Amino acid sequence: MRPSSRDLDQMRTISIETNVTRYAEGSCMIKCGETHVLCTASIDDRVPPFLKNSGLGWVTAEYGMLPRATHTRMRREAKNGQSGRTQEIQRLIGRSLRAGIDRVALGERQITVDCDVIQADGGTRCASITGGWVALRLAINALMKAGDVISDPMLDHVAAVSCGIYAGQPVLDLDYPEDSEAGVDGNFVMMGSSRLVEVQMSAEGSTFSRDEMNTLMDLAEKGVGELVAAQKAAVS
Amino acid sequence: MRPSSRDLDQMRTISIETNVTRYAEGSCMIKCGETHVLCTASIDDRVPPFLKNSGLGWVTAEYGMLPRATHTRMRREAKNGQSGRTQEIQRLIGRSLRAGIDRVALGERQITVDCDVIQADGGTRCASITGGWVALRLAINALMKAGDVISDPMLDHVAAVSCGIYAGQPVLDLDYPEDSEAGVDGNFVMMGSSRLVEVQMSAEGSTFSRDEMNTLMDLAEKGVGELVAAQKAAVS
Amino acid sequence: MRPSSRDLDQMRTISIETNVTRYAEGSCMIKCGETHVLCTASIDDRVPPFLKNSGLGWVTAEYGMLPRATHTRMRREAKNGQSGRTQEIQRLIGRSLRAGIDRVALGERQITVDCDVIQADGGTRCASITGGWVALRLAINALMKAGDVISDPMLDHVAAVSCGIYAGQPVLDLDYPEDSEAGVDGNFVMMGSSRLVEVQMSAEGSTFSRDEMNTLMDLAEKGVGELVAAQKAAVS
Amino acid sequence: MRPSSRDLDQMRTISIETNVTRYAEGSCMIKCGETHVLCTASIDDRVPPFLKNSGLGWVTAEYGMLPRATHTRMRREAKNGQSGRTQEIQRLIGRSLRAGIDRVALGERQITVDCDVIQADGGTRCASITGGWVALRLAINALMKAGDVISDPMLDHVAAVSCGIYAGQPVLDLDYPEDSEAGVDGNFVMMGSSRLVEVQMSAEGSTFSRDEMNTLMDLAEKGVGELVAAQKAAVS
Amino acid sequence: MRPSSRDLDQMRTISIETNVTRYAEGSCMIKCGETHVLCTASIDDRVPPFLKNSGLGWVTAEYGMLPRATHTRMRREAKNGQSGRTQEIQRLIGRSLRAGIDRVALGERQITVDCDVIQADGGTRCASITGGWVALRLAINALMKAGDVISDPMLDHVAAVSCGIYAGQPVLDLDYPEDSEAGVDGNFVMMGSSRLVEVQMSAEGSTFSRDEMNTLMDLAEKGVGELVAAQKAAVS
Amino acid sequence: MRPSSRDLDQMRTISIETNVTRYAEGSCMIKCGETHVLCTASIDDRVPPFLKNSGLGWVTAEYGMLPRATHTRMRREAKNGQSGRTQEIQRLIGRSLRAGIDRVALGERQITVDCDVIQADGGTRCASITGGWVALRLAINALMKAGDVISDPMLDHVAAVSCGIYAGQPVLDLDYPEDSEAGVDGNFVMMGSSRLVEVQMSAEGSTFSRDEMNTLMDLAEKGVGELVAAQKAAVS
Repeated sequence: MRPSSRDLDQMRTISIETNVTRYAEGSCMIKCGETHVLCTASIDDRVPPFLKNSGLGWVTAEYGMLPRATHTRMRREAKNGQSGRTQEIQRLIGRSLRAGIDRVALGERQITVDCDVIQADGGTRCASITGGWVALRLAINALMKAGDVISDPMLDHVAAVSCGIYAGQPVLDLDYPEDSEAGVDGNFVMMGSSRLVEVQMSAEGSTFSRDEMNTLMDLAEKGVGELVAAQKAAVS
Repeated sequence: MRPSSRDLDQMRTISIETNVTRYAEGSCMIKCGETHVLCTASIDDRVPPFLKNSGLGWVTAEYGMLPRATHTRMRREAKNGQSGRTQEIQRLIGRSLRAGIDRVALGERQITVDCDVIQADGGTRCASITGGWVALRLAINALMKAGDVISDPMLDHVAAVSCGIYAGQPVLDLDYPEDSEAGVDGNFVMMGSSRLVEVQMSAEGSTFSRDEMNTLMDLAEKGVGELVAAQKAAVS
Repeated sequence: MRPSSRDLDQMRTISIETNVTRYAEGSCMIKCGETHVLCTASIDDRVPPFLKNSGLGWVTAEYGMLPRATHTRMRREAKNGQSGRTQEIQRLIGRSLRAGIDRVALGERQITVDCDVIQADGGTRCASITGGWVALRLAINALMKAGDVISDPMLDHVAAVSCGIYAGQPVLDLDYPEDSEAGVDGNFVMMGSSRLVEVQMSAEGSTFSRDEMNTLMDLAEKGVGELVAAQKAAVS
Repeated sequence: MRPSSRDLDQMRTISIETNVTRYAEGSCMIKCGETHVLCTASIDDRVPPFLKNSGLGWVTAEYGMLPRATHTRMRREAKNGQSGRTQEIQRLIGRSLRAGIDRVALGERQITVDCDVIQADGGTRCASITGGWVALRLAINALMKAGDVISDPMLDHVAAVSCGIYAGQPVLDLDYPEDSEAGVDGNFVMMGSSRLVEVQMSAEGSTFSRDEMNTLMDLAEKGVGELVAAQKAAVS
Repeated sequence: MRPSSRDLDQMRTISIETNVTRYAEGSCMIKCGETHVLCTASIDDRVPPFLKNSGLGWVTAEYGMLPRATHTRMRREAKNGQSGRTQEIQRLIGRSLRAGIDRVALGERQITVDCDVIQADGGTRCASITGGWVALRLAINALMKAGDVISDPMLDHVAAVSCGIYAGQPVLDLDYPEDSEAGVDGNFVMMGSSRLVEVQMSAEGSTFSRDEMNTLMDLAEKGVGELVAAQKAAVS
Repeated sequence: MRPSSRDLDQMRTISIETNVTRYAEGSCMIKCGETHVLCTASIDDRVPPFLKNSGLGWVTAEYGMLPRATHTRMRREAKNGQSGRTQEIQRLIGRSLRAGIDRVALGERQITVDCDVIQADGGTRCASITGGWVALRLAINALMKAGDVISDPMLDHVAAVSCGIYAGQPVLDLDYPEDSEAGVDGNFVMMGSSRLVEVQMSAEGSTFSRDEMNTLMDLAEKGVGELVAAQKAAVS
């Protein structure tokens, strides 16, 4: 019944290749099916002004899409400025990754996680969070190896998956053909412990019940479990 | 225990004054405690390009804050452009209001709902949705009275409330002192029927369990019920 | 003969409600007939760079209109940037208010007067100056009460009114139907003493004689006298 | 007593050289003492959208300053956008020139008058109006010679001069050293007939009486008379 | 003597992988040593306004760098707008690729070549041209295969290489350590036939003789020969 | 054969008038035939941040065109921002002028050379470089006369000329009718010694051989020789 013939609760194939760029302190290419996102983590000794002399660190994120990451070419944001959608997504990624960080242990430095979508087939913000965590983990490993950070500031894994109601059925990990048809869909950001960080459920031209929401959350827990396993394999 | 001495499940005083401006086809001033939002609905015969000759209507929203709606004066967005936060909020308001509309019945016209925060004490996006629905209802009443729209395009009430975990307790309808301290908070947009339209839960420097989430949703259902009653009183 | 049936030298009803917002150090809602402007005065300890360590204070103003303050909805300036008209108006308000201030007595601090038009029916810049003066007066009262300012920096009242030639007759305090038809109109900013601060007379598709100008100035003196009386009543 | 040793009612030397650029339909370099402005008039067959199929013409103006037209180099507006002051000035020039035009006789075309300040020593907006009129006159002469316009759309001369109170004395045609010290100054735009088009009087840190205003207007009439004579000599 | 131990006339290893993205009509990842550029070619049936109904096609290019393509993270252009350097580079790429196209044979359509630098180690604009040609070739192959274009509009190969004077010696294909030290460097765009399309030689804090220039051009011819061979291998 | 009837290797008439504005430390109006550029050099004691406390000076350039410098009026860049072409040109002018400067001898100060095109007939960037050098020379003369700079930081003359292939013939110093038709054209920046600083050759819809390039460089050497002679005459 799904365009991809997947089972309702079946994730797309996940692959996470680490250290894919030469300069970034941490990096990976995450592929969730045909959605490919390059994630890099860059360490900077300066923090934003509101944190100066606070002793606290900061993690922030920026998100972009190459113009031909999509079926039809989009206008380049460097020419037109970031859309509201882009800003919304990068704020979500930043908040999600900060949830997994002890900012005291990180110390007064900033890590910027750049998530650039090379190819898009739905779920780019979730892939960015899951891959962004890996890039962050590797960058912090480098800080710890260099002795710049003593106790590990990473509290737990953070990963994200989308779920939605497609053709009347609850499905896990929507691809683009499903996402563009689903009346209800949501993004679920969770810790390795399954505790929740962000829930964003949204209906366009539709509504949903609390029962449906609970079903979707069950699916999300299953999906995040598989993503966390993939993260573990990638960084070990 | 709450700074305002309210019970955990107690809303702030709600007041909705309608027809507060002279020109808008629908308008109200909604006050949720010390949060005051002026909502106007403006009808335009032209729809956005992607809907031309589709026979479908459109409802969109814009959101703004007066510079001194807050404790300390903010920079005027007209001088600096809309922030990511502003864009995120107005996209949410628009999606939420569209959930309550039959776009075929509305016909090929656009209604723009402007939500301008005169005074802010937390929960401005929720007040904007709840008040925006009233302005929209009044504008559509005018269309129906004029015979421009025959069958009522409004499917149900739409209203929104925030809930969060403050000082370890789940609380309903956060004001600013609570909002700025809460580790977890969320916005719940519901129909009059209690079916869900949007759920946005977010933790900053914290996480939450599914049990906590369910408690917050119970609170939200109670709150939205009271808001819908206030909407009914206002437009009757 | 006037659309509102007013006499040629008759002002619209003036009302000034003070302390209308919770946070601003001074505020009022001024209504000149159907023109409604919310004025707030915000105190900031920092002055613009060109005044650093000068011992002099500064008063500046910003002006905005809600998108549906007018008959037909205007584009939101936060999305498009401030128009030339907006910038011209806020520069005028700032200059006018500074004329009534002893900047040495104010001391090295800045007061920003925000004038936001809630509903527009002509004469918004004049109402902004007259109401802005009230907000400024209240903010300075607060500074004096707190002992931050010792001798009163306010030299005199400042108020403004428009006059013009409508249907061949000189009229006082133009409303929108008159303003949009008048070939000649002007804005007159005066002190409580009737001394002049700004005169801006302008003809679009027309011209005027010095005699006509003198007649308009007589009307303006009368109008400003009534506005100053209303200011006095409001702040007493 | 004046820095330039001029009499109180003495203008700076005026020179207007016509046809100074190769491509513009009308052009002149106007020099009012050390203030030099290059004015060009460009004819375009298209009118702004609000005039389409109205049969009416339009005259508009744009104003700029070369970065080193002034004592110290200013930032280039092409890099930073037009300032509020620039927009205010070009709106004034446009309104002033339109006052001298019969837009029916001009026919449905637009003339853009560009006023670029090559060197600034006070009074640049007045020189722009006076020189802009000459460029406009020459461009319209070309239209008439070509038979594109039958009856002359120019109703009268339009010229402008500044006056102010410097060191306690009313003076005509302020240069920069006077302008930067004057507590009161104004710009007066008049027709050849001495009828008024625009009066903009402004006090910064000062005020003025109606008697003083009348004295300044007497000076302005004298000055505009001399400017109109210079225009006549230039275009004959 | 070269940091990379290459011979003076030795290119970096070239690799061109084709069809690397799913949606673009043509694409490749070109690697010139550690410089990696993703090139996509997107076909659009609409041409820019100045070519409407001309029967002529258009090829244009856009260029970007991921923020962490470089040693230290750069600011994201989507947040700050394209720099002058970026605009200059994309204009060069566009002109270069158009030199190899018969715009009549292409027919009235536009192909946009996006060159996004994934990792930068000098010579990104040259790699963009060389890789951009491959993407363009593949996109045009698709047009021809579909019968949308009958006769091949590609006249010849187009490829580019940089040369410069490093440590007093003429060297081929500068990497970043050389580029940042070279007093003279240039970019040479050539056809497969060795005819020249663009020469951009530039000295910063230095100058060069015609003899030196000729030596560099000899090197460039050698380098472009190797690049054209790599292009041939890639598209065959 | 040339539209202007010049010989293939004949320059347009060159005139350089110095000290044409009152405030700039150095200035000239350069006329190359009908191309007229006003060049000013402005000295600033502050250097850009990357040179603070380096002891090194900086020379930079900005370029602009008056809207009616051209056959048909262009949009004013102050309203629309600088085009890519403008930025490319001003970067070239700056690099070229820096090639003639000993930045140690200049000392830690910045000189900004503004090149504003009053009238354009092809070759505006070359005229800007040649005239910009004169303005720079005069400004540095002033610094030396004032004793602010001891040893002359100017190493040699810098001048520029365009050459191209027009109607199949190599020609020197293209004017606009030639430039708009030429398939190949280039800009050559040289020192007084004939050593090269920049070479920018470009073909649009065409290509060129190395022999053709050598012929154009011979022409350029001849042209620059004449420009340097004109510079010498102007500053002596």
